[in-house]
Amino acid sequence: MKTASAGPEIERLISLLAKLPGLGPRSARRAALHLLGKKDALMRPLADALADAADKIRACTECGNLDVADPCTVCAAPNRLDAAICVVETVGDLWALERAGAFKGRYHVLGGVLSALDGVRPEDLNIAKLVERAAREEVSEIVLALNATVDGQTTAHYLADRMADCGVAVTSLARGVPVGGELDYLDDGTLAAAFRSRSSV
Amino acid sequence: MKTASAGPEIERLISLLAKLPGLGPRSARRAALHLLGKKDALMRPLADALADAADKIRACTECGNLDVADPCTVCAAPNRLDAAICVVETVGDLWALERAGAFKGRYHVLGGVLSALDGVRPEDLNIAKLVERAAREEVSEIVLALNATVDGQTTAHYLADRMADCGVAVTSLARGVPVGGELDYLDDGTLAAAFRSRSSV
Repeated sequence: MKTASAGPEIERLISLLAKLPGLGPRSARRAALHLLGKKDALMRPLADALADAADKIRACTECGNLDVADPCTVCAAPNRLDAAICVVETVGDLWALERAGAFKGRYHVLGGVLSALDGVRPEDLNIAKLVERAAREEVSEIVLALNATVDGQTTAHYLADRMADCGVAVTSLARGVPVGGELDYLDDGTLAAAFRSRSSV
Repeated sequence: MKTASAGPEIERLISLLAKLPGLGPRSARRAALHLLGKKDALMRPLADALADAADKIRACTECGNLDVADPCTVCAAPNRLDAAICVVETVGDLWALERAGAFKGRYHVLGGVLSALDGVRPEDLNIAKLVERAAREEVSEIVLALNATVDGQTTAHYLADRMADCGVAVTSLARGVPVGGELDYLDDGTLAAAFRSRSSV
């Protein structure tokens, strides 16, 4: 990590950049030099954008989405369905679903999944609020869009149990062959699930 | 790049992060979410470090190195040799040589290499100052530590010509087998150069 003769200002910048996911010590050095070569075009705007976003962006108290407004744009949108709530692990998953344009209801961000290994318990997640929202009269379906991992599925089962008395339909995303996927490269579990859920052409 | 429902503050942050070398649109989104999850531990310190470095760091008027001081720490160091100047393309190369601890003289950063393709001419580089420094009485050797690329070697030949009348020895880094390198994986040019420059054991 030592860059030598660069002074503590650059060292500090590099060590902070190296904490970003996707950047290591070497690429952080490269990024720092790139930034110092484009002070007005990139470095100062990035500093401003970081400070600005840190001040303005917060978690929506209704759904956990990140936005400058609270309730967030999705929760406040008048043209979205109130009948369905899509449960996701992270805001990144919410963005992915919005990019796909697959869902026109509201979201609920859990902020993670249950994990015995990492010590994540139900009270560590945004679950109480979800149960409260699920019990509302206008809500008829909860779509669990959690990752198809062991922890994701454990969490899905836990949530389905918790909402059993809310009188809502609890659904989850389909398992199957991804678009563009080749059968030969798919794992056995996915193939078996796709076979079980086959549909008429 | 569209993240939807995230607001212009996050969009702007993501598009700026995506301009860093090593980060694309997807990893920039991931970095933005990571930062928003660690506002006080990472996001605000990074904003401060960027603004601080943008204000304080500048190019040394003597050698082109980046530092808060001008002349820079290397130029000002009393315990370094004045007799030798090592010419590098970028500050990143200077850092790499300093990490290796291979050189105890002064440096000179060209800021690039000559390139007919990219339209980089001698007057676009920090060459006039180098010739001036090479002509100084105390300087006896100029070490050209340029990349072993076509443009790097073109530039090395040009610099050797320009400094022919300065009365200094112009040298360049040795070509050979890298430490830990396996002969079978080396290119023919490197092997031939290493063979020509063989030394007695």
